[in-house]
Amino acid sequence: MNIHYPNGQKPRKEYNPHRDLPTPHQSIYAKRGMSLEDEINHSNQYYLANHIAVIHKKPTPIQLVKVDYPKRSAAVIKEAYFRRPSTTDYNGVYKGYYIDFDAKETRNKRSFPLKNFHPHQINHMRECIKQGGICFAFIKFTELDLIYLLPATILFNFWDQQESGGRKSIPLATIAKNGYQIGYRLNPRLPYLDAVDQIIANKK
Amino acid sequence: MNIHYPNGQKPRKEYNPHRDLPTPHQSIYAKRGMSLEDEINHSNQYYLANHIAVIHKKPTPIQLVKVDYPKRSAAVIKEAYFRRPSTTDYNGVYKGYYIDFDAKETRNKRSFPLKNFHPHQINHMRECIKQGGICFAFIKFTELDLIYLLPATILFNFWDQQESGGRKSIPLATIAKNGYQIGYRLNPRLPYLDAVDQIIANKK
Repeated sequence: MNIHYPNGQKPRKEYNPHRDLPTPHQSIYAKRGMSLEDEINHSNQYYLANHIAVIHKKPTPIQLVKVDYPKRSAAVIKEAYFRRPSTTDYNGVYKGYYIDFDAKETRNKRSFPLKNFHPHQINHMRECIKQGGICFAFIKFTELDLIYLLPATILFNFWDQQESGGRKSIPLATIAKNGYQIGYRLNPRLPYLDAVDQIIANKK
Repeated sequence: MNIHYPNGQKPRKEYNPHRDLPTPHQSIYAKRGMSLEDEINHSNQYYLANHIAVIHKKPTPIQLVKVDYPKRSAAVIKEAYFRRPSTTDYNGVYKGYYIDFDAKETRNKRSFPLKNFHPHQINHMRECIKQGGICFAFIKFTELDLIYLLPATILFNFWDQQESGGRKSIPLATIAKNGYQIGYRLNPRLPYLDAVDQIIANKK
């Protein structure tokens, strides 16, 4: 679904709570076509239902300002703002491993712009890896319909190079070479734990 | 990060449905100084800053109904409702282990009422344990100023007994015997990873 801004701006493709807002009377969890987020959530539901892994998307953090508590009915939030998440969006546990990742989409066809990540997300993944977690990024090239799982260490390399004046994006070729392509399947739609199995095998 | 609000109101503490939802038990939980949640969050900040563990409280899930997009300023949520979380409130990674827990307070002095937990939280912890995660409950007896970390397996035993007609609470004596008492310290305020170390040692 496309959300049109009052000022006529076209929505950016990156994850952005200000864009992903539902229209009135639509739940934040309602279907919006098949976004990468939907595909991951569906896959996680499959993994959970089949006792394969427990991985959830975290709710979007909200800063509450005004809440009404009507008698005999549910509390109503009357004023609140979206906050920038301090971590990645997804985490959970699989085969004893802590799993942590974020999912990003780009319409670019040749590279993935690093501006899709925020410094706090990179820092968060660095800390998780120090604790033995498995961290990665889902990267979807929407125009090419290509999805990759890119280990966070590759992302860190490009992030650090960018900070010292290097290029501002990761070439598709690098992602294809160092990441794991995730092809669609029926169930789960994105069988990404197959790639995680390979990361685990490489850890040992 | 401090967020300043246009109307100068101070932000409320992050919403906690087990504290803030208008339930028959709400009055019991009203008015607390340093809540257990605050104490845990402070401890997690210490652990994170010292690269000891990465454990966060998840944001409270919100059902959005109406959002305004003023020109040149942040989106404002004008109507929304609290949703009941489908998992526990806290998770993260420590020494390679997936950590998952919830925190509950009771004013009871002799036992902890199981009604403080919802079935989906129990199910979630069961699934996490199947995947090799470490799950537990923080239980604070506020009137006694006693805090325990109770391994989820003990909680499951009482939960299952309750479902087949058993008692509706866990005696304090059982919690004291099978759990780990967490005494206050300066930094971190609740050194609960010491107890987690013991759980890890018992796993091996």
